[in-house]
Amino acid sequence: MDEFSFIKNYLSNYKPDGELLCGIGDDAAILRPQNGFDWHISTDMLVAGRHFFVDVSPEDLAYKVLAVNISDMAAMGAIPKYVLLSAALPQLNLQWLDKFFQSLSEILLQYSIKLIGGDTVKGNYIFNITIIGQTPSGQALKRNGAQVGDDIWVSGKIGLAAAGLYFEEQCRKYNNGLKYILDNKLSLPESISIFSQDTISMCLDKLLRPQPRVKLGNSLLNIAHSALDISDGLLQDLGHILESSNVSALVYLNQIPSLCDLSLSNNYQQWILSGGDDYELIFTATPENEEQIKNIAQLANIEVAKIGKIIDKDDNFLYKVFDDENGNEMKEINSGFNHFL
Amino acid sequence: MDEFSFIKNYLSNYKPDGELLCGIGDDAAILRPQNGFDWHISTDMLVAGRHFFVDVSPEDLAYKVLAVNISDMAAMGAIPKYVLLSAALPQLNLQWLDKFFQSLSEILLQYSIKLIGGDTVKGNYIFNITIIGQTPSGQALKRNGAQVGDDIWVSGKIGLAAAGLYFEEQCRKYNNGLKYILDNKLSLPESISIFSQDTISMCLDKLLRPQPRVKLGNSLLNIAHSALDISDGLLQDLGHILESSNVSALVYLNQIPSLCDLSLSNNYQQWILSGGDDYELIFTATPENEEQIKNIAQLANIEVAKIGKIIDKDDNFLYKVFDDENGNEMKEINSGFNHFL
Repeated sequence: MDEFSFIKNYLSNYKPDGELLCGIGDDAAILRPQNGFDWHISTDMLVAGRHFFVDVSPEDLAYKVLAVNISDMAAMGAIPKYVLLSAALPQLNLQWLDKFFQSLSEILLQYSIKLIGGDTVKGNYIFNITIIGQTPSGQALKRNGAQVGDDIWVSGKIGLAAAGLYFEEQCRKYNNGLKYILDNKLSLPESISIFSQDTISMCLDKLLRPQPRVKLGNSLLNIAHSALDISDGLLQDLGHILESSNVSALVYLNQIPSLCDLSLSNNYQQWILSGGDDYELIFTATPENEEQIKNIAQLANIEVAKIGKIIDKDDNFLYKVFDDENGNEMKEINSGFNHFL
Repeated sequence: MDEFSFIKNYLSNYKPDGELLCGIGDDAAILRPQNGFDWHISTDMLVAGRHFFVDVSPEDLAYKVLAVNISDMAAMGAIPKYVLLSAALPQLNLQWLDKFFQSLSEILLQYSIKLIGGDTVKGNYIFNITIIGQTPSGQALKRNGAQVGDDIWVSGKIGLAAAGLYFEEQCRKYNNGLKYILDNKLSLPESISIFSQDTISMCLDKLLRPQPRVKLGNSLLNIAHSALDISDGLLQDLGHILESSNVSALVYLNQIPSLCDLSLSNNYQQWILSGGDDYELIFTATPENEEQIKNIAQLANIEVAKIGKIIDKDDNFLYKVFDDENGNEMKEINSGFNHFL
């Protein structure tokens, strides 16, 4: 099978409609934008060995490659509509590709997203997604809108993906990886045996199958003042909101929702404050909207929690983290993931 | 310098306008589409060692990464407007990056294109560009519009990039590469010494600095019936037009413009028929538009040549290639580049 048959077979399954005039199959897709919407476009590159283990299953890989990009749309409050996928693959392994594209198709269908462009080259498992989403004009959630007095909220549970990565790395010191151990009911390494199997499974699931919060983000239009998704670490991503909004923040560790079990580890604070890859939303809103936010979250079937407050910009700090509202300030915090370290 | 300072320093040099509401700096760029235009989006991945030599200069690399994508817009007749760039780089070499982004900025400025998104990861020189362009609604040049009786046209000279790659590979058998040899006035390898230095320089330039035919493509709206850019080889790209238009073609080798000197090589036919990377346009139009096309080409300061005819679909062949209009049919043609071979 050559490149063109490959593209034809896998990528041409969408028919044109009123907005998408031409999908895959020409030099470029053709879109006719409808009135009244703003378009949001972002791009992400994922590299084997850095963003995922090279032996990850094709199903999990396809899921994650899409999910992290859909999450960027969720963070803008946008509905994802179209993606373009470039893939560098070592060879045309049809069995692998079938699984990859089957999984890709499922999540595209689940979110009503159309694949409108792509490129395939020979290389070692590198993926690039460009995603396009829409909001009604002028309503996008941006990072620069946080206001003094806002509550800081997060969705879901935090730190699970970082813990999952730690569990995975511990297992790989001795074995084939966590999924293999769990599937084959092998014993877990001593270093993580203090954690329940449920906790370990949930963390692995969060690492492999993060849930982009599209419905929540979209429901927060005109309600949240600012929003981001937590991809690089809670404090680092909060820092982006604070810097671009020109404000500071107080954060209370005990209010950040996570799994109880994880607090058994010395890494706990690091996981929840600096662990990336959770793809939960962090957003700010006036306290007056608290009830409305709780209702929205309930409708979106997701927990939300207030974890801090936006305060006037303090030139000495972006944020201070306390154990709890009456507690001591924490020092020496590693703020998050740096793609070049 | 961490990833965020990197992005800030290099990629945030564009100010919002009526259509671009927010560029780099949030989870996604925000665009508000103007009425009356169709949008064209495509994506391309370029990998070191496959699409370019890993020791290529950062200036030439930045140029080519953009040019091949701009060419996709030219092939639709679209005006390129926005790009998103993902780059996997081995380390933050500031000297290298300065040169790369200086060159990138120059071509973006030259074509009035704005960089609205990006991603940087650690990796071995892999680039992905997504490009967005516009045409007046309904006017895009597509590959599926070729009509029986159309002339087949190409712009510029064909086969130079493939010859340039051959020259480069011959030099690299013994030396540092063609550019080094030319810059240092060293002697060329015996195997390519039959070619003039001018020819060799022009071919290298075509390989490193292909000229996307934006002005020509845009001027052909409502005049050409179909168009593509020659990226994978003349016959292969023509084949895409023929297949999607449900027609066949006759092509005359002697009418394909190239450099005389190149015909000294046994590879000549392969270079012009199957060599990719020229990024010239191949398009079809009714013979009635011949004069108009010649005028357009003159205004765009580019040669164009008629190289064949569209005929009724023949189930036995997509195209036949003849030496000239009265000549013999050529057999055993290698039709072009396959990204997975």
